Amino acid sequence: MTRTLNVAMIGGGFMGKAHAMAYAAMPMFFWPAPAIPVRKVVVDVTEALADEGRRRYGFEESSADWRAVVKRPDIDVVDIVTPNDSHAAIAIAAAEAGKHIICEKPLARGGDEAKTMLDAVKKAGIIHMVAFNYRRTPAVALARQYIEEGRIGKILNFRGTYLQDWSADPDSPLSWRFQKKIAGSGSIGDIGTHVVDLARYLVGEIAEVSALVRTYNKTRPVQSGNLDRLGAAERNTGAQRAEVDVDDEVVTLLKFADGAIGSLEATRNAYGRNNFITFEIHGTKGSIAFNYERRDELQVMFADDPADARGFRTVYSGPAHPYGSGLWPIPALGIGYSETKIVECFDFFSAIASGKQPSPNFEDGYKTERVADALIESGESGHWVKVRP
Amino acid sequence: MTRTLNVAMIGGGFMGKAHAMAYAAMPMFFWPAPAIPVRKVVVDVTEALADEGRRRYGFEESSADWRAVVKRPDIDVVDIVTPNDSHAAIAIAAAEAGKHIICEKPLARGGDEAKTMLDAVKKAGIIHMVAFNYRRTPAVALARQYIEEGRIGKILNFRGTYLQDWSADPDSPLSWRFQKKIAGSGSIGDIGTHVVDLARYLVGEIAEVSALVRTYNKTRPVQSGNLDRLGAAERNTGAQRAEVDVDDEVVTLLKFADGAIGSLEATRNAYGRNNFITFEIHGTKGSIAFNYERRDELQVMFADDPADARGFRTVYSGPAHPYGSGLWPIPALGIGYSETKIVECFDFFSAIASGKQPSPNFEDGYKTERVADALIESGESGHWVKVRP
Amino acid sequence: MTRTLNVAMIGGGFMGKAHAMAYAAMPMFFWPAPAIPVRKVVVDVTEALADEGRRRYGFEESSADWRAVVKRPDIDVVDIVTPNDSHAAIAIAAAEAGKHIICEKPLARGGDEAKTMLDAVKKAGIIHMVAFNYRRTPAVALARQYIEEGRIGKILNFRGTYLQDWSADPDSPLSWRFQKKIAGSGSIGDIGTHVVDLARYLVGEIAEVSALVRTYNKTRPVQSGNLDRLGAAERNTGAQRAEVDVDDEVVTLLKFADGAIGSLEATRNAYGRNNFITFEIHGTKGSIAFNYERRDELQVMFADDPADARGFRTVYSGPAHPYGSGLWPIPALGIGYSETKIVECFDFFSAIASGKQPSPNFEDGYKTERVADALIESGESGHWVKVRP
Amino acid sequence: MTRTLNVAMIGGGFMGKAHAMAYAAMPMFFWPAPAIPVRKVVVDVTEALADEGRRRYGFEESSADWRAVVKRPDIDVVDIVTPNDSHAAIAIAAAEAGKHIICEKPLARGGDEAKTMLDAVKKAGIIHMVAFNYRRTPAVALARQYIEEGRIGKILNFRGTYLQDWSADPDSPLSWRFQKKIAGSGSIGDIGTHVVDLARYLVGEIAEVSALVRTYNKTRPVQSGNLDRLGAAERNTGAQRAEVDVDDEVVTLLKFADGAIGSLEATRNAYGRNNFITFEIHGTKGSIAFNYERRDELQVMFADDPADARGFRTVYSGPAHPYGSGLWPIPALGIGYSETKIVECFDFFSAIASGKQPSPNFEDGYKTERVADALIESGESGHWVKVRP
Repeated sequence: MTRTLNVAMIGGGFMGKAHAMAYAAMPMFFWPAPAIPVRKVVVDVTEALADEGRRRYGFEESSADWRAVVKRPDIDVVDIVTPNDSHAAIAIAAAEAGKHIICEKPLARGGDEAKTMLDAVKKAGIIHMVAFNYRRTPAVALARQYIEEGRIGKILNFRGTYLQDWSADPDSPLSWRFQKKIAGSGSIGDIGTHVVDLARYLVGEIAEVSALVRTYNKTRPVQSGNLDRLGAAERNTGAQRAEVDVDDEVVTLLKFADGAIGSLEATRNAYGRNNFITFEIHGTKGSIAFNYERRDELQVMFADDPADARGFRTVYSGPAHPYGSGLWPIPALGIGYSETKIVECFDFFSAIASGKQPSPNFEDGYKTERVADALIESGESGHWVKVRP
Repeated sequence: MTRTLNVAMIGGGFMGKAHAMAYAAMPMFFWPAPAIPVRKVVVDVTEALADEGRRRYGFEESSADWRAVVKRPDIDVVDIVTPNDSHAAIAIAAAEAGKHIICEKPLARGGDEAKTMLDAVKKAGIIHMVAFNYRRTPAVALARQYIEEGRIGKILNFRGTYLQDWSADPDSPLSWRFQKKIAGSGSIGDIGTHVVDLARYLVGEIAEVSALVRTYNKTRPVQSGNLDRLGAAERNTGAQRAEVDVDDEVVTLLKFADGAIGSLEATRNAYGRNNFITFEIHGTKGSIAFNYERRDELQVMFADDPADARGFRTVYSGPAHPYGSGLWPIPALGIGYSETKIVECFDFFSAIASGKQPSPNFEDGYKTERVADALIESGESGHWVKVRP
Repeated sequence: MTRTLNVAMIGGGFMGKAHAMAYAAMPMFFWPAPAIPVRKVVVDVTEALADEGRRRYGFEESSADWRAVVKRPDIDVVDIVTPNDSHAAIAIAAAEAGKHIICEKPLARGGDEAKTMLDAVKKAGIIHMVAFNYRRTPAVALARQYIEEGRIGKILNFRGTYLQDWSADPDSPLSWRFQKKIAGSGSIGDIGTHVVDLARYLVGEIAEVSALVRTYNKTRPVQSGNLDRLGAAERNTGAQRAEVDVDDEVVTLLKFADGAIGSLEATRNAYGRNNFITFEIHGTKGSIAFNYERRDELQVMFADDPADARGFRTVYSGPAHPYGSGLWPIPALGIGYSETKIVECFDFFSAIASGKQPSPNFEDGYKTERVADALIESGESGHWVKVRP
Repeated sequence: MTRTLNVAMIGGGFMGKAHAMAYAAMPMFFWPAPAIPVRKVVVDVTEALADEGRRRYGFEESSADWRAVVKRPDIDVVDIVTPNDSHAAIAIAAAEAGKHIICEKPLARGGDEAKTMLDAVKKAGIIHMVAFNYRRTPAVALARQYIEEGRIGKILNFRGTYLQDWSADPDSPLSWRFQKKIAGSGSIGDIGTHVVDLARYLVGEIAEVSALVRTYNKTRPVQSGNLDRLGAAERNTGAQRAEVDVDDEVVTLLKFADGAIGSLEATRNAYGRNNFITFEIHGTKGSIAFNYERRDELQVMFADDPADARGFRTVYSGPAHPYGSGLWPIPALGIGYSETKIVECFDFFSAIASGKQPSPNFEDGYKTERVADALIESGESGHWVKVRP
């Protein structure tokens, strides 16, 4: 019989929705499942919110006391989907209680904080994962497969972007994502780390960066309530305004440890781009290009194709590709955000079942935070900055 | 308190997976939910398969006797996800038992059979729906909204396609989808009806057709087991072969009742096309284009844009568009097949909660079957054929 | 020494510009040139216009008397770039005078008229060509090459479109292109014949058609002057209006002589489409897709690619492809309308130099007119119509 | 009467072809022409080559002595289409002789050399232009127009690329483009300067750069003959090899003088990219994106579009846009490399006719060389480098 594992999910918001859906759906897709998640307890900041989360997300119980919940003997897994400022405290407590942990990205508000979390999970010997879901997109996993098989040769360079436009409007509210004490950083931590994760997944360790960092909208209207107003259309032109102390954009050069070079751009101020996560990789035997906005597709070019039929192939991910057997029976039936989260859930529970750390785990999350630290430092100093090992 | 409704799902396969996921996920996305589906009983052809379905899809009970299940007093909703040849018997029995019904497409193996189902549900006074999920794609619903608001003017023509390639290989197995007695027809019923549904949703009733119908692969290897080998890569070149008695392709002209014209092409033999459901609509004030393979996007062109900035806009569906508030907080986070089924589930349970028939209901499903009948007849006769009213 | 050939160009307009440019440029691109065109005489409807044409297009002489010019002993080639109603008279006179002829498309105002032209050139034994330039696009010629080499197998079907929007506005002027006595037909002859030419070039003879033909704008403002107001932005809402007696749109099914099927759509009323000449061809071993609006590219899919790397390749035409050695040194430097006309000119003069008829010649132009006749007849009768042999 | 101007073209190769075509075609397209170029003398390295150029490109005379030709009193314009190492000598001699000059890009082998040329043309008071033709693409000029009209607001950032793959093969020949003494630099001068020119045209002066510069293929087979083997498919694996002393790739951050930031990547080693000149510009009111491989199109997004219809518009350049009235009567008929050169020729002769310096002139070419210098210096030093004023 497949093992069941009790999950305590700390936090709600749209990310709670995504995780709860994945707990329900994962065994339906990947069957026999490595383990079956049980939605045991959901925790939110008030009893009322938690109870609503329970009914909405199909959990058995609710609570407003995460400290109590993460210690419960019947909990196997702690899922952290709160704003960034509580990741460390929850993760460390959960680790000390011996729970497996999946934590939303970015892991922490910087490398130092991430280090405390990494130390805790290493000491506890539990399974840990950071929810950089975009590398779970089947087309991205296919890119990795091509690279590992040497089909595009040695990688020369990488170009990655994550462009959104939901914060371009200077009158959109000052949510927690614009406050350094909660978020740690702005576009760097919120979305730039996704590209760093992709770069590390596909190319390898980043050794050094030279970055430009900018804050375009210096103030924003103070937001009432603590909701995550990501993408909220509502503008509040009359409200009191307060300072934004995080970045709106980062553009950086990259030196990889193995000699490849590259660049990365992340901004939430790019009108017309929605969730424009792209990468292009040139190798000595071919190239790969990807755009998450058209995430069913991977573009791949093999240099040894016949001279009269060379060009990027548009490969739609499907059963012949990574994760394909668990998803849909033909390509282009449709990979959405849901599917990326279902795959992530599968990899996490597979790791628990096998006892082998998944990737990206807290070690990866920590390294990514060190890259974020370096981006901030380089943006301030105007010099190349080595990523701390 | 939100009402709960007990669902009996008849059938498994990948479509059962999709529906089960939607039952679990719908209230998470559309909250407060119109009603909360309870996965009560899953039915399959053997007890063993049904029990596996129960565990996999998270149902409370399983059964191999659909006739008994659809009569159970504790069942509110019957969900039919079986091959086409059992739709009518199950739907009629469920209607007679007073259950609300959602039935996978195509509704039946032709208009006559569909009529018996329509009569039954009308007599029973229950809520009924046909699972043409593609019109639930938010970008498609946005196209409908633009049209209803008159933003592209009077529609002149419609061009629709549904191209796949999973049956192009002559050695792919003779699944039930190639057998007339089970499927009713080939590409016409399996995928052509989806485009007919889109055409009816976006333009209106189809009055007349002139069609070409072709079967390219006249025989296929007999398949062992009754699995739905949709998209199965496994070829069986040595197996005994049997005759294919359904169509591989239909291409047709369309006359709509309101004067618009158009064309439609459906085939599962188009190498390189995966789930290429497209439409292009030209109106007197603008145009719309859609490709499900890039389903987050709708292309729309407004003729009254300034002369120096006219062109198709690539609109990524999101919170500002139909269903957007229930799905993801920003555009392009990702609409997949899952999301289309979650929306479908929402619309179905909304209909039950409100007591108003959803669309497409069995009346729509019946009319679509009459168009399918006309396509087959025109393909045989070589004449324009009026769709029976 | 390369032979020089004296050209008399009858007509101006934008097409005269395109041809004159090609005469000057062809030897620069295809060197050594098969023959060097000399821009000897340009003819227009008045002496003044003709003289302006001479200076503008770099001809040595001008004339308002085409009948005299086509008989001149020093003229080797007659180039007909006039409206459709004068093609036959000029071509027949030129043929009788023993001149080689290149004639703009469509060849005539229907098959009967085309037949008189075909008879004349056959009798005269001269080289003749119809200027269906789009098949000269290198990517289209590459499609033909793939097909001839059997790389996509036996062709199953063809889907072609030619969509423009310059006549969608009901207040755009009643140019000669909307007058049957001059143009012969509307979208059918003006742009539909281009797609017929492509279908014949890539697939083979069209045997039978079932068509829908529509005129959306029944009247248009009378135009002062006889200019070709193609694409003219100027609207004349106050002007007297007169009847349009040609079609705005044709949509048709196709049966090819060799068993393939297909469809074709041509309209100048498709808002947002500019010069949207597309085709998609499915074969038993692969598929091809093309869109002239992105004409440097050909999409090709080979079914025997490895299972994990199948998909349409975006091949940019260049030196490795047809005509590539004469054009630009790398792909995507840029194929424009100019380049298609330079290639056309090269093929025409190569034919003269070799004494072998080029393609499409008047035989092809005649057959295309017979397809146009069939489209009109089918649109009127509502039946399948066989193309006259 | 329109003035005629006698042109001496120094050099052949594919660029000579492009220029010769433009001289012939420009008045045909832009009529009445600002002046009519006369192809007077073509110069090449030997009498035989020059005579072949005369016949091929339609010049009246040929010569192997550029020093004599540029002094001829009957010459009005000197056109420099030679490799980079002779630009300065020819331009300075031509300036001293009082000729107007158009010089291929890059202007020189660095800023110091460019300065001598700039000084010479300033002293001579003649009209001078550098042939950065890509800004002549109508869609690029439209981007500039949108920006000048404030339609995308204040520019925040610019991202530009120029990716090709013709030098990716390590066995492609060591043409002059890989030799520092002739070319000055590699991808930086050859293609990077095009992007610098676009950035300066669209955004403004570049103040500072931080660059990564790489040479991937350290040696190449020595080439026999002095042909420009750009894009040559022929590999010579057995030949003697010599060192490459120029860069294969540059990736850089940019700080613009007005506060905008950006990045630029140029490489001839990007498999699958052919002439992938792209830019994306984000402003406070909208965004613009362009890809030369699909050069008829400009993507533009206006932030003030209605919430339910926001997205990039695909605008096909045509008569409503810059240069449109001189080119083709409808959009998407086709802009190729030829058309960009015809427009360039028009702007140059317009400048001569009006007596006003065109853009980019030698001042622009000089500034672009100073950016190139800074890129090389930054690549070597690993620091931000200020562009010399």
